[in-house]
Amino acid sequence: MAKAPVLTPRAEDFPRWYQDVINKAELAENGPVRGTMVIRPYGYGLWERMQGDLDARIKAVGVQNAYFPLFIPQSYLTREAEHVEGFAPELAVVTHGGGKELEEPVVVRPTSETIVNEYFSKWVQSYRDLPLLINQWANVVRWELRPRLFLRTTEFLWQEGHTAHATCEDAREFAARIHRDVYADFMENVLAMDVVLGRKTARERFAGAVNTLTLEGMMGDGKALQLGTSHELGQNFARAFNTRYLSRDGEQELVWQTSWGSTTRMVGALVMMHGDDDGLRLPPRLAPVQAVVLAVKGDPAVLAAVRETGDRLAAAGVRVRVDDRADIPFGRRAVDWELRGVPVRVEIGPRDLEAGTATLARRIPGGKEPVRTDLLAEAVPKALEEDQALLLRQARERRMARTVEARTVEEAAEAAAAGGWARIRWTDLGPEGEVALAERAVSVRCLVTEDGAVPDADDAPGNVAYVARAY
Amino acid sequence: MAKAPVLTPRAEDFPRWYQDVINKAELAENGPVRGTMVIRPYGYGLWERMQGDLDARIKAVGVQNAYFPLFIPQSYLTREAEHVEGFAPELAVVTHGGGKELEEPVVVRPTSETIVNEYFSKWVQSYRDLPLLINQWANVVRWELRPRLFLRTTEFLWQEGHTAHATCEDAREFAARIHRDVYADFMENVLAMDVVLGRKTARERFAGAVNTLTLEGMMGDGKALQLGTSHELGQNFARAFNTRYLSRDGEQELVWQTSWGSTTRMVGALVMMHGDDDGLRLPPRLAPVQAVVLAVKGDPAVLAAVRETGDRLAAAGVRVRVDDRADIPFGRRAVDWELRGVPVRVEIGPRDLEAGTATLARRIPGGKEPVRTDLLAEAVPKALEEDQALLLRQARERRMARTVEARTVEEAAEAAAAGGWARIRWTDLGPEGEVALAERAVSVRCLVTEDGAVPDADDAPGNVAYVARAY
Repeated sequence: MAKAPVLTPRAEDFPRWYQDVINKAELAENGPVRGTMVIRPYGYGLWERMQGDLDARIKAVGVQNAYFPLFIPQSYLTREAEHVEGFAPELAVVTHGGGKELEEPVVVRPTSETIVNEYFSKWVQSYRDLPLLINQWANVVRWELRPRLFLRTTEFLWQEGHTAHATCEDAREFAARIHRDVYADFMENVLAMDVVLGRKTARERFAGAVNTLTLEGMMGDGKALQLGTSHELGQNFARAFNTRYLSRDGEQELVWQTSWGSTTRMVGALVMMHGDDDGLRLPPRLAPVQAVVLAVKGDPAVLAAVRETGDRLAAAGVRVRVDDRADIPFGRRAVDWELRGVPVRVEIGPRDLEAGTATLARRIPGGKEPVRTDLLAEAVPKALEEDQALLLRQARERRMARTVEARTVEEAAEAAAAGGWARIRWTDLGPEGEVALAERAVSVRCLVTEDGAVPDADDAPGNVAYVARAY
Repeated sequence: MAKAPVLTPRAEDFPRWYQDVINKAELAENGPVRGTMVIRPYGYGLWERMQGDLDARIKAVGVQNAYFPLFIPQSYLTREAEHVEGFAPELAVVTHGGGKELEEPVVVRPTSETIVNEYFSKWVQSYRDLPLLINQWANVVRWELRPRLFLRTTEFLWQEGHTAHATCEDAREFAARIHRDVYADFMENVLAMDVVLGRKTARERFAGAVNTLTLEGMMGDGKALQLGTSHELGQNFARAFNTRYLSRDGEQELVWQTSWGSTTRMVGALVMMHGDDDGLRLPPRLAPVQAVVLAVKGDPAVLAAVRETGDRLAAAGVRVRVDDRADIPFGRRAVDWELRGVPVRVEIGPRDLEAGTATLARRIPGGKEPVRTDLLAEAVPKALEEDQALLLRQARERRMARTVEARTVEEAAEAAAAGGWARIRWTDLGPEGEVALAERAVSVRCLVTEDGAVPDADDAPGNVAYVARAY
C-alpha cells in the first residue's frame, strides 16, 4: 500500500502535526473572526457522540437540563469580585442591539454562574427545593489571544453544570461525584483517556471558587491538558446573589454551590493523546464508524462481498461503513480511513474471496491478518474490545514513562522542559516554587495525596504536585 | 377533587392565559436582558425531545450536523443585498472583545447563510462534492422589540439546515422534501399539530430567498403561527460568496441552495394549539412523562401498589412517573399534573385497592374511569395511542370550523379580526390586497393550490391565500 506522507511527523513538529490532523481529517477550520472555529461534520460527529454519552451520565446522577441566556448584564459579572477579575479581560461586549446603542452593555456569557444564581435565588425557597441540580449544553465566549483549534478558541461548546445544596458537605460530595463518577468514568471508559485526578492550587483555581477539582491528561508530546473541572463555589455566589433557603429550623440560610464543565477541547485531546504519525486513532466506544469494509477492487463479486460483510457486521452491533468507491484507488482510501482513525478495516479483494477470508487491519495495535469470513462477526467486536483497552493502556504507560520524581524546583522545571511531567512534594515546592515555575512557563497541574487520591486541602501533609508545561 | 383557579380562562384573555401556563407549568421565564428567555427544565425537556426526534429525521434524509461560529464579520452580511436589508434592524453587534475595541465589529448570528457560504465556497470543488447537506443546532439572536416567551425572543434555539446542489431542480426538490417529509411529518405525527403547508408570498419571503415554504398552525384563539420554513435560495448567496463547482462538462457553475429552520417557538405552539383552561395537553409521543401513577393516600398498601404499577407500566414501554408524595394533598398534585399536560393519570387509593382497580384519568379527552389493575398495561398504551390521534383531530377540526371562504379583502379582514382564518383566491387579493390587509394587522400566511398542494409560483392559476392575524 503506497502511503503519501500527508502529515508532518510528530517528532519533527508536534503542533504542526496537530494542525495537519485537524485539517486533513476534516475535523475543523479557523472561523473568520479570530479565535472562532468551524466544526466540520467529522469533528462534530465526535462531539455529538461525546455529548450523548456524557449527557446520559449527567442525567443518571439526577441533573436536569435547562437553558440560560447568552447575554448577561455587565453588572451581574461585577457582583462577585474574584469572578469579574478573572473574566474581565476575556469578555466580548455587545454595545448595540436592534440598531440602537444599549443603555447597559451586555456581555456574551463566558460562563453562567452569575445569571444562574439570579434565577436560583428565585427558585430556591426552602430546604425542600434542594439540592437543585441543573446543566446546560451551550456555547460560551472568552476572547482568546493565542487561539488553537479545539484547545483554546474564542467561542467553544460545552456543558456547564450548576447546583445548589443545603450543606457544605453535600456540595463538596457532589463536586467530587461529578469529578470522579461522571467525568473520570466517561474519559477513561469511553474516550480511553488516561487522566490524573487532583486538586488545583489556589493560583490555578476557577475565579470565584473555593476549590477546583481537575482532570489532567498527558498529550503525545508530554505536555499537559486540563480536560474538565468541577468547582466547589462555597457560598461566594450565593452571597453575591442572595441565594437563600428556609432551613428545617426555620432559618434563612445561604446555599452551598458547585459548577462544573467539559468542552469541545476534549476533541483536541483525543487527537493529541491517541493520534500517531498516520493520524487519528479513535477509541472504539466513541468512534462514529468502528469498522469500514473496503472493496480492494471493483469486481461485482467483491462489491457483493463487501456489502454482505457490512450487513453482517451491522447485525453484530458494529457501527460499520461500506467503502465500495472502486473509482478511487484502494491505497488512497485506506490511508484516508487510517487518517480518520477508524479502529478496524476489513479489506476484501479477489484473492481474499478465493481464500474465503478477509484482511483485518487494526488501526490501534497496527498490523493486518487474514480472518475467515464466517468468523468476522466475532473477530471484529473482539478486536474493538481489545483496542479500547489497549488505547488507555498505551496512554497510561506513556504518562508513567515520562513522569519523573523531582526534589527541587529546578529538577521539576527541567523535566517539564524536556517534554514530560514531574511529581514533587508540595512541601518542596509551595506557592513560591509555583511562581518560580510560572516564570519558566511551567505550571502545577494539580495536587494529589501520597497514594494518588484527591486531597482535601492544598497544604494537607504528603501532598504531591504534578508539574508540567500545558496547553 | 378541589381545583384552584390557577389560570386565567382562555376566553377571558388568551395572551394572559398563555403567560400563566408558561409560568405555572414552569416552562420558562423572562431573562434579565430584554427579550431573552430562561428555559426551565420542564420546558427544556420538551425541546430536548423535539430535538431528538427531528434530528433523527434530518439525518435520515442524508444531512450531517456541523457547527459554525456565533460571530460573523459585519461585512459578510452586506454581501447579499436583500439579506442585509432584512436583518440589519435586528442585529446585536459586538464592538469590544478582550478589553479592546474591535477593528471590525462582529454581529451575533441572526442566521448563518453568509458564514456557511464562506466555507461552502472552499469545500465545494466539483460536482462530486454535491449535494452538500449540513445542519446545525444553535442559538441565534434577533433583537426583538415586542418579545413573547418562546414565540418571539431576542435569543432563540433552533436548527438551521444549509444545502448546496448542482441543479435548481435538485435544490427545489430538497427544500420541498424538508418541508413535507421532515417538518410536516414531525409536526403532525409527533407534535399532533395541524399544519397548513404552503408557499409564502413575495412580501413574506425570507430575506435573500427566491421561494419560502412554510407550515402554518392555528392557535387556540384563531390566530396563525408560522411553525417552520424551508427556503429555496436560488443562486443568491452562491453569487455573493462565489460558491462554484466544476460541472461534469468541465464548467465552473454556481451552486443552487436551500436553507430551513425550526425553533423553540414550537414549544409555544404546543401550548397555544393544544392547551386548555386547565393547562398544557401534551401529545403522548412527545410527552417526557406519558403517565403518572398517583397515590391518593399514604397507606403502605397504596404506596406499594403505585410503585408496582409504575414498574409494570415502565415494562410495557410507557414513560412513567410515580407520584407517592403523600405529604402534599392529592388534589393539588392532580391539578399540577393536569397543568403540566401529562396525558394519563393512574390514581390509586384504598377503595381502588379493595376493588382491584385503578382510576384512569385522561387529560386529552377528559374524564375518569375505573380499570382493572391487571389490564392497565394494555389500557394505558391504548389510551396514549388514541389521545395522540385525538389531539391532532381536535386541532384540525378547530381550524376547519374557524376558516371561512372570503371573496373580498373586507371579508377576509373581518374573519381574521373575529379570530379566525379566511381563504381567498389570490386573484381576488393580490399584492395590493395584501398591503390593504397589512394595514389592518392581517397577513397572508401562505398560498396553496385549489386542491391544497404547494404552488410552484405566487401567480399560479387557482392559487388560494390563507389570511389571518399572526403571532
